[in-house]
Amino acid sequence: MAQEDSKDDVTLSQFLDAVARGTATPGGGSVSALAGTLAAALVEMVVNLTVGKKGFEGQEAEMKKMGEAAHSYREALGATIAQDINAYQGVMKAYLLPRGTEEEKKTRKEEIQKALKRAADPPLFTAATSLKVLKLCQKAAEKGNPNSQTDAAVGALLAEAALRGGVLNVLVNLSALEEENTVKKMRQELKRLEAEGIKTRDKILTQVKERLKAE
Amino acid sequence: MAQEDSKDDVTLSQFLDAVARGTATPGGGSVSALAGTLAAALVEMVVNLTVGKKGFEGQEAEMKKMGEAAHSYREALGATIAQDINAYQGVMKAYLLPRGTEEEKKTRKEEIQKALKRAADPPLFTAATSLKVLKLCQKAAEKGNPNSQTDAAVGALLAEAALRGGVLNVLVNLSALEEENTVKKMRQELKRLEAEGIKTRDKILTQVKERLKAE
Repeated sequence: MAQEDSKDDVTLSQFLDAVARGTATPGGGSVSALAGTLAAALVEMVVNLTVGKKGFEGQEAEMKKMGEAAHSYREALGATIAQDINAYQGVMKAYLLPRGTEEEKKTRKEEIQKALKRAADPPLFTAATSLKVLKLCQKAAEKGNPNSQTDAAVGALLAEAALRGGVLNVLVNLSALEEENTVKKMRQELKRLEAEGIKTRDKILTQVKERLKAE
Repeated sequence: MAQEDSKDDVTLSQFLDAVARGTATPGGGSVSALAGTLAAALVEMVVNLTVGKKGFEGQEAEMKKMGEAAHSYREALGATIAQDINAYQGVMKAYLLPRGTEEEKKTRKEEIQKALKRAADPPLFTAATSLKVLKLCQKAAEKGNPNSQTDAAVGALLAEAALRGGVLNVLVNLSALEEENTVKKMRQELKRLEAEGIKTRDKILTQVKERLKAE
Protein backbone atom coordinates (compact mmCIF):
# COMPACT_ATOMS: atom_id res chain seq x y z
CA MET A 1 0.00 0.00 0.00
CA ALA A 2 2.75 2.45 0.80
CA GLN A 3 4.89 1.72 -2.21
CA GLU A 4 5.54 4.36 -4.79
CA ASP A 5 3.25 4.33 -7.80
CA SER A 6 1.31 1.48 -6.32
CA LYS A 7 -2.24 1.36 -7.64
CA ASP A 8 -3.61 0.64 -4.20
CA ASP A 9 -1.94 3.63 -2.60
CA VAL A 10 -4.49 5.37 -0.40
CA THR A 11 -4.64 8.81 1.18
CA LEU A 12 -3.78 9.32 4.84
CA SER A 13 -7.45 9.97 5.68
CA GLN A 14 -8.61 6.88 3.80
CA PHE A 15 -6.11 4.75 5.67
CA LEU A 16 -7.09 6.25 9.04
CA ASP A 17 -10.78 5.72 8.25
CA ALA A 18 -10.09 2.11 7.28
CA VAL A 19 -8.31 1.53 10.60
CA ALA A 20 -11.10 3.21 12.58
CA ARG A 21 -13.83 1.08 10.96
CA GLY A 22 -15.26 -1.92 12.85
CA THR A 23 -13.44 -4.51 10.74
CA ALA A 24 -10.51 -6.61 11.92
CA THR A 25 -8.21 -5.27 9.18
CA PRO A 26 -6.32 -3.02 8.77
CA GLY A 27 -5.50 -3.07 12.47
CA GLY A 28 -2.55 -3.00 14.82
CA GLY A 29 -0.41 -5.20 12.54
CA SER A 30 -0.68 -2.88 9.55
CA VAL A 31 -0.33 0.25 11.70
CA SER A 32 2.89 -1.18 13.17
CA ALA A 33 4.32 -1.73 9.68
CA LEU A 34 3.32 1.82 8.72
CA ALA A 35 5.08 3.18 11.84
CA GLY A 36 8.21 1.38 10.59
CA THR A 37 7.93 3.07 7.18
CA LEU A 38 7.67 6.48 8.87
CA ALA A 39 10.81 5.76 10.89
CA ALA A 40 12.67 4.69 7.74
CA ALA A 41 11.56 7.87 5.94
CA LEU A 42 12.95 9.94 8.82
CA VAL A 43 16.33 8.21 8.42
CA GLU A 44 16.26 9.11 4.73
CA MET A 45 15.42 12.72 5.69
CA VAL A 46 18.45 12.96 7.98
CA VAL A 47 20.64 11.48 5.23
CA ASN A 48 19.32 13.97 2.69
CA LEU A 49 19.90 16.87 5.10
CA THR A 50 23.51 15.72 5.59
CA VAL A 51 24.79 14.61 2.17
CA GLY A 52 26.19 17.53 0.18
CA LYS A 53 26.30 19.82 3.23
CA LYS A 54 29.54 21.52 4.26
CA GLY A 55 31.35 19.80 7.09
CA PHE A 56 29.96 16.33 6.36
CA GLU A 57 32.12 15.45 3.34
CA GLY A 58 33.79 12.62 5.29
CA GLN A 59 30.48 10.88 6.06
CA GLU A 60 29.10 11.15 2.53
CA ALA A 61 29.68 7.54 1.41
CA GLU A 62 28.44 6.01 4.66
CA MET A 63 25.40 8.30 4.70
CA LYS A 64 24.44 7.41 1.14
CA LYS A 65 24.64 3.71 1.95
CA MET A 66 22.46 4.29 4.99
CA GLY A 67 19.89 6.16 2.93
CA GLU A 68 19.68 3.31 0.44
CA ALA A 69 19.20 0.76 3.21
CA ALA A 70 16.50 2.91 4.85
CA HIS A 71 14.71 3.26 1.52
CA SER A 72 14.63 -0.48 0.92
CA TYR A 73 13.32 -1.11 4.47
CA ARG A 74 10.67 1.53 3.85
CA GLU A 75 9.52 -0.28 0.71
CA ALA A 76 9.54 -3.70 2.35
CA LEU A 77 7.60 -2.46 5.40
CA GLY A 78 5.20 -0.67 3.06
CA ALA A 79 4.43 -3.98 1.36
CA THR A 80 3.91 -5.57 4.78
CA ILE A 81 0.95 -3.26 5.47
CA ALA A 82 -1.07 -5.18 2.88
CA GLN A 83 0.52 -8.57 3.61
CA ASP A 84 -0.64 -8.34 7.20
CA ILE A 85 -4.21 -7.75 6.05
CA ASN A 86 -4.12 -10.75 3.67
CA ALA A 87 -2.57 -13.08 6.23
CA TYR A 88 -5.13 -12.17 8.87
CA GLN A 89 -7.98 -12.68 6.44
CA GLY A 90 -6.58 -16.16 5.81
CA VAL A 91 -7.01 -16.95 9.50
CA MET A 92 -10.59 -15.72 9.52
CA LYS A 93 -11.36 -17.77 6.41
CA ALA A 94 -9.95 -20.91 8.03
CA TYR A 95 -12.15 -20.42 11.10
CA LEU A 96 -15.19 -20.29 8.80
CA LEU A 97 -14.50 -23.75 7.28
CA PRO A 98 -17.28 -26.35 7.82
CA ARG A 99 -17.02 -28.58 10.87
CA GLY A 100 -19.93 -30.99 10.41
CA THR A 101 -18.05 -34.29 10.05
CA GLU A 102 -14.96 -35.55 11.88
CA GLU A 103 -13.04 -35.24 8.59
CA GLU A 104 -14.12 -31.60 8.23
CA LYS A 105 -13.17 -30.87 11.82
CA LYS A 106 -9.72 -32.30 11.25
CA THR A 107 -9.19 -30.33 8.02
CA ARG A 108 -10.46 -27.12 9.63
CA LYS A 109 -8.12 -27.50 12.57
CA GLU A 110 -5.13 -28.09 10.29
CA GLU A 111 -6.01 -25.11 8.09
CA ILE A 112 -6.36 -22.84 11.13
CA GLN A 113 -2.93 -23.89 12.37
CA LYS A 114 -1.38 -23.29 8.94
CA ALA A 115 -3.06 -19.89 8.63
CA LEU A 116 -1.95 -18.83 12.12
CA LYS A 117 1.64 -19.72 11.28
CA ARG A 118 1.45 -17.72 8.05
CA ALA A 119 -0.15 -14.78 9.87
CA ALA A 120 2.81 -14.57 12.25
CA ASP A 121 5.19 -13.84 9.35
CA PRO A 122 4.25 -10.22 8.49
CA PRO A 123 4.41 -8.91 12.10
CA LEU A 124 7.63 -10.86 12.70
CA PHE A 125 9.08 -9.20 9.61
CA THR A 126 7.88 -5.82 10.90
CA ALA A 127 9.57 -6.40 14.26
CA ALA A 128 12.89 -7.60 12.80
CA THR A 129 13.04 -4.91 10.10
CA SER A 130 12.07 -2.14 12.50
CA LEU A 131 15.02 -3.09 14.69
CA LYS A 132 17.25 -2.59 11.65
CA VAL A 133 15.62 0.81 11.04
CA LEU A 134 16.11 1.66 14.72
CA LYS A 135 19.83 1.00 14.39
CA LEU A 136 19.95 3.29 11.37
CA CYS A 137 18.22 5.96 13.49
CA GLN A 138 21.02 5.60 16.03
CA LYS A 139 23.67 6.10 13.35
CA ALA A 140 21.71 9.02 11.88
CA ALA A 141 21.53 10.70 15.31
CA GLU A 142 25.24 10.20 15.88
CA LYS A 143 26.73 10.99 12.49
CA GLY A 144 24.07 12.97 10.65
CA ASN A 145 23.50 16.73 10.56
CA PRO A 146 22.96 17.80 14.21
CA ASN A 147 20.11 20.07 13.05
CA SER A 148 18.08 16.99 12.30
CA GLN A 149 18.89 14.89 15.34
CA THR A 150 15.35 15.32 16.68
CA ASP A 151 14.07 13.78 13.47
CA ALA A 152 16.36 10.79 14.04
CA ALA A 153 15.07 10.53 17.61
CA VAL A 154 11.43 10.63 16.50
CA GLY A 155 12.37 7.92 14.00
CA ALA A 156 13.70 5.86 16.90
CA LEU A 157 10.44 6.28 18.83
CA LEU A 158 8.39 5.21 15.80
CA ALA A 159 10.70 2.27 15.01
CA GLU A 160 10.47 1.05 18.59
CA ALA A 161 6.66 1.31 18.50
CA ALA A 162 6.68 -0.61 15.20
CA LEU A 163 8.96 -3.29 16.64
CA ARG A 164 6.89 -3.80 19.79
CA GLY A 165 3.63 -3.61 17.87
CA GLY A 166 4.94 -6.34 15.58
CA VAL A 167 5.91 -8.44 18.60
CA LEU A 168 2.40 -8.14 20.09
CA ASN A 169 0.84 -9.20 16.80
CA VAL A 170 3.05 -12.29 16.58
CA LEU A 171 2.15 -13.14 20.20
CA VAL A 172 -1.57 -13.04 19.35
CA ASN A 173 -1.04 -15.69 16.69
CA LEU A 174 1.22 -17.78 18.92
CA SER A 175 -1.42 -17.88 21.62
CA ALA A 176 -3.55 -20.18 19.42
CA LEU A 177 -0.67 -22.16 17.87
CA GLU A 178 -0.21 -25.71 19.09
CA GLU A 179 3.39 -26.51 18.07
CA GLU A 180 5.08 -26.08 21.43
CA ASN A 181 8.65 -25.97 20.12
CA THR A 182 7.92 -23.38 17.45
CA VAL A 183 6.08 -21.25 19.98
CA LYS A 184 8.88 -21.47 22.52
CA LYS A 185 11.58 -20.56 19.99
CA MET A 186 9.54 -17.71 18.59
CA ARG A 187 8.86 -16.28 22.05
CA GLN A 188 12.60 -16.23 22.75
CA GLU A 189 13.32 -14.47 19.46
CA LEU A 190 10.63 -11.87 20.18
CA LYS A 191 12.08 -11.21 23.63
CA ARG A 192 15.53 -10.71 22.14
CA LEU A 193 14.24 -8.30 19.48
CA GLU A 194 12.26 -6.31 22.02
CA ALA A 195 15.08 -6.05 24.57
CA GLU A 196 17.54 -4.89 21.92
CA GLY A 197 15.01 -2.38 20.58
CA ILE A 198 14.34 -0.82 23.98
CA LYS A 199 18.05 -0.61 24.76
CA THR A 200 18.83 1.10 21.44
CA ARG A 201 15.90 3.51 21.72
CA ASP A 202 16.88 4.53 25.28
CA LYS A 203 20.44 5.19 24.18
CA ILE A 204 19.35 7.48 21.33
CA LEU A 205 16.87 9.43 23.47
CA THR A 206 19.39 9.98 26.27
CA GLN A 207 22.01 11.24 23.81
CA VAL A 208 19.67 13.57 21.96
CA LYS A 209 18.12 14.97 25.15
CA GLU A 210 21.54 15.70 26.62
CA ARG A 211 22.51 17.59 23.50
CA LEU A 212 19.26 19.60 23.59
CA LYS A 213 19.94 20.65 27.17
CA ALA A 214 23.54 21.56 26.39
CA GLU A 215 22.62 23.85 23.51
CA MET B 1 -3.61 17.05 5.93
CA ALA B 2 -5.19 14.02 7.50
CA GLN B 3 -8.67 15.44 7.76
CA GLU B 4 -11.54 13.96 5.85
CA ASP B 5 -12.35 15.59 2.55
CA SER B 6 -9.45 17.96 2.98
CA LYS B 7 -8.19 19.21 -0.35
CA ASP B 8 -4.59 18.78 0.70
CA ASP B 9 -5.03 15.15 1.70
CA VAL B 10 -2.06 13.20 0.34
CA THR B 11 -1.42 9.51 -0.22
CA LEU B 12 0.68 7.49 2.21
CA SER B 13 3.54 7.28 -0.32
CA GLN B 14 3.43 10.99 -1.04
CA PHE B 15 3.63 11.75 2.66
CA LEU B 16 6.50 9.30 3.19
CA ASP B 17 8.35 10.75 0.19
CA ALA B 18 7.86 14.28 1.55
CA VAL B 19 9.31 13.21 4.91
CA ALA B 20 12.26 11.44 3.25
CA ARG B 21 13.18 14.51 1.15
CA GLY B 22 16.05 16.77 2.24
CA THR B 23 13.79 19.58 3.43
CA ALA B 24 13.19 20.49 7.08
CA THR B 25 9.43 19.90 6.81
CA PRO B 26 7.49 17.65 7.13
CA GLY B 27 9.78 16.16 9.77
CA GLY B 28 9.63 14.67 13.24
CA GLY B 29 6.98 17.11 14.45
CA SER B 30 4.48 16.20 11.74
CA VAL B 31 5.29 12.49 11.98
CA SER B 32 4.61 12.63 15.73
CA ALA B 33 1.19 14.19 15.12
CA LEU B 34 0.46 11.52 12.50
CA ALA B 35 1.42 8.79 14.99
CA GLY B 36 -1.17 10.31 17.35
CA THR B 37 -3.87 10.13 14.64
CA LEU B 38 -3.06 6.44 14.08
CA ALA B 39 -3.42 5.75 17.81
CA ALA B 40 -6.77 7.57 17.89
CA ALA B 41 -7.99 5.58 14.86
CA LEU B 42 -7.09 2.34 16.69
CA VAL B 43 -9.23 3.43 19.66
CA GLU B 44 -12.12 4.04 17.26
CA MET B 45 -11.51 0.57 15.79
CA VAL B 46 -11.78 -1.08 19.21
CA VAL B 47 -14.96 0.89 19.92
CA ASN B 48 -16.49 -0.16 16.59
CA LEU B 49 -15.58 -3.81 17.24
CA THR B 50 -17.28 -3.60 20.66
CA VAL B 51 -20.46 -1.55 20.18
CA GLY B 52 -23.38 -3.72 19.04
CA LYS B 53 -21.56 -6.97 19.91
CA LYS B 54 -23.15 -9.51 22.25
CA GLY B 55 -21.86 -9.31 25.80
CA PHE B 56 -20.91 -5.65 25.67
CA GLU B 57 -24.39 -4.11 25.98
CA GLY B 58 -23.45 -2.59 29.35
CA GLN B 59 -20.47 -0.71 27.95
CA GLU B 60 -22.30 0.65 24.90
CA ALA B 61 -22.84 4.24 26.09
CA GLU B 62 -19.33 4.63 27.52
CA MET B 63 -17.79 3.10 24.39
CA LYS B 64 -19.68 5.43 22.08
CA LYS B 65 -18.53 8.45 24.08
CA MET B 66 -14.98 7.15 23.87
CA GLY B 67 -15.22 6.72 20.11
CA GLU B 68 -16.43 10.30 19.70
CA ALA B 69 -13.58 11.64 21.80
CA ALA B 70 -11.03 9.58 19.86
CA HIS B 71 -12.46 10.84 16.57
CA SER B 72 -12.17 14.48 17.62
CA TYR B 73 -8.57 13.94 18.80
CA ARG B 74 -7.83 12.28 15.47
CA GLU B 75 -9.11 15.32 13.58
CA ALA B 76 -7.26 17.80 15.80
CA LEU B 77 -3.99 15.87 15.52
CA GLY B 78 -4.53 15.56 11.77
CA ALA B 79 -4.71 19.36 11.52
CA THR B 80 -1.53 19.60 13.61
CA ILE B 81 0.46 17.78 10.88
CA ALA B 82 0.14 20.88 8.68
CA GLN B 83 0.30 23.38 11.56
CA ASP B 84 3.70 22.02 12.56
CA ILE B 85 4.99 22.59 9.02
CA ASN B 86 3.70 26.19 8.94
CA ALA B 87 5.06 27.05 12.38
CA TYR B 88 8.50 25.70 11.55
CA GLN B 89 8.58 27.59 8.29
CA GLY B 90 7.83 30.75 10.31
CA VAL B 91 11.01 30.13 12.30
CA MET B 92 13.10 29.67 9.15
CA LYS B 93 11.61 32.86 7.66
CA ALA B 94 12.50 34.84 10.79
CA TYR B 95 16.11 33.63 10.62
CA LEU B 96 16.29 34.95 7.05
CA LEU B 97 15.31 38.52 8.03
CA PRO B 98 17.95 41.21 7.25
CA ARG B 99 20.49 42.05 9.93
CA GLY B 100 22.39 44.97 8.44
CA THR B 101 21.49 47.75 10.87
CA GLU B 102 21.13 47.63 14.66
CA GLU B 103 17.38 48.18 14.23
CA GLU B 104 17.16 45.22 11.82
CA LYS B 105 19.15 43.05 14.19
CA LYS B 106 16.76 43.88 17.03
CA THR B 107 13.66 43.21 14.91
CA ARG B 108 15.10 39.96 13.63
CA LYS B 109 15.90 38.76 17.14
CA GLU B 110 12.38 39.59 18.35
CA GLU B 111 10.78 37.89 15.36
CA ILE B 112 12.88 34.75 15.90
CA GLN B 113 11.82 34.59 19.55
CA LYS B 114 8.15 35.04 18.62
CA ALA B 115 8.38 32.38 15.90
CA LEU B 116 10.11 29.91 18.22
CA LYS B 117 7.35 30.36 20.80
CA ARG B 118 4.69 29.80 18.15
CA ALA B 119 6.56 26.77 16.82
CA ALA B 120 6.41 25.13 20.25
CA ASP B 121 2.60 25.12 20.19
CA PRO B 122 1.90 22.34 17.63
CA PRO B 123 4.26 19.77 19.22
CA LEU B 124 3.02 20.71 22.72
CA PHE B 125 -0.53 20.11 21.49
CA THR B 126 0.58 16.78 19.99
CA ALA B 127 2.13 15.73 23.31
CA ALA B 128 -0.85 16.75 25.46
CA THR B 129 -3.47 15.31 23.10
CA SER B 130 -1.55 12.05 22.61
CA LEU B 131 -1.61 11.55 26.39
CA LYS B 132 -5.41 11.83 26.21
CA VAL B 133 -5.44 9.29 23.37
CA LEU B 134 -3.15 7.03 25.41
CA LYS B 135 -5.65 7.06 28.26
CA LEU B 136 -8.41 6.11 25.84
CA CYS B 137 -6.21 3.21 24.68
CA GLN B 138 -6.02 2.05 28.29
CA LYS B 139 -9.80 2.13 28.64
CA ALA B 140 -10.19 0.41 25.27
CA ALA B 141 -7.81 -2.38 26.35
CA GLU B 142 -9.66 -2.83 29.64
CA LYS B 143 -13.29 -2.54 28.60
CA GLY B 144 -13.33 -3.14 24.86
CA ASN B 145 -13.75 -6.40 22.95
CA PRO B 146 -10.85 -8.64 24.12
CA ASN B 147 -10.34 -9.75 20.51
CA SER B 148 -9.04 -6.29 19.74
CA GLN B 149 -6.90 -5.69 22.79
CA THR B 150 -3.70 -5.95 20.71
CA ASP B 151 -5.02 -3.10 18.58
CA ALA B 152 -5.50 -1.02 21.74
CA ALA B 153 -1.96 -1.91 22.83
CA VAL B 154 -0.48 -0.91 19.45
CA GLY B 155 -2.48 2.32 19.83
CA ALA B 156 -0.77 2.85 23.19
CA LEU B 157 2.68 2.33 21.63
CA LEU B 158 1.92 4.84 18.87
CA ALA B 159 0.38 7.37 21.27
CA GLU B 160 3.44 7.16 23.50
CA ALA B 161 5.76 7.66 20.50
CA ALA B 162 3.61 10.65 19.45
CA LEU B 163 3.74 12.11 22.96
CA ARG B 164 7.51 11.76 23.32
CA GLY B 165 8.11 12.92 19.73
CA GLY B 166 6.05 16.03 20.53
CA VAL B 167 8.10 16.60 23.70
CA LEU B 168 11.39 16.42 21.77
CA ASN B 169 10.11 18.91 19.21
CA VAL B 170 9.10 21.37 21.92
CA LEU B 171 12.55 20.95 23.52
CA VAL B 172 14.26 21.88 20.24
CA ASN B 173 12.40 25.19 20.20
CA LEU B 174 13.01 25.82 23.89
CA SER B 175 16.75 25.40 23.43
CA ALA B 176 16.85 28.71 21.50
CA LEU B 177 14.21 30.56 23.56
CA GLU B 178 15.46 33.23 25.92
CA GLU B 179 12.56 33.66 28.37
CA GLU B 180 13.94 31.68 31.28
CA ASN B 181 10.67 31.42 33.22
CA THR B 182 8.65 30.22 30.23
CA VAL B 183 11.33 27.66 29.41
CA LYS B 184 11.50 26.37 32.99
CA LYS B 185 7.72 26.02 33.30
CA MET B 186 7.46 24.33 29.93
CA ARG B 187 10.23 21.85 30.75
CA GLN B 188 8.37 20.85 33.91
CA GLU B 189 5.12 20.37 31.99
CA LEU B 190 6.92 18.24 29.38
CA LYS B 191 8.46 16.06 32.09
CA ARG B 192 5.06 15.52 33.67
CA LEU B 193 3.43 14.60 30.34
CA GLU B 194 6.24 12.20 29.48
CA ALA B 195 6.32 10.49 32.88
CA GLU B 196 2.55 9.98 32.85
CA GLY B 197 2.69 8.68 29.29
CA ILE B 198 5.39 6.11 30.02
CA LYS B 199 3.57 4.91 33.15
CA THR B 200 0.27 4.49 31.30
CA ARG B 201 1.91 2.74 28.34
CA ASP B 202 3.76 0.30 30.60
CA LYS B 203 0.55 -0.56 32.43
CA ILE B 204 -1.31 -1.34 29.21
CA LEU B 205 1.52 -3.46 27.76
CA THR B 206 1.92 -5.49 30.97
CA GLN B 207 -1.81 -6.19 31.11
CA VAL B 208 -2.17 -7.17 27.47
CA LYS B 209 0.96 -9.36 27.51
CA GLU B 210 -0.24 -11.20 30.60
CA ARG B 211 -3.54 -11.92 28.93
CA LEU B 212 -1.79 -13.17 25.77
CA LYS B 213 0.27 -15.62 27.83
CA ALA B 214 -2.77 -16.79 29.76
CA GLU B 215 -4.79 -17.62 26.67
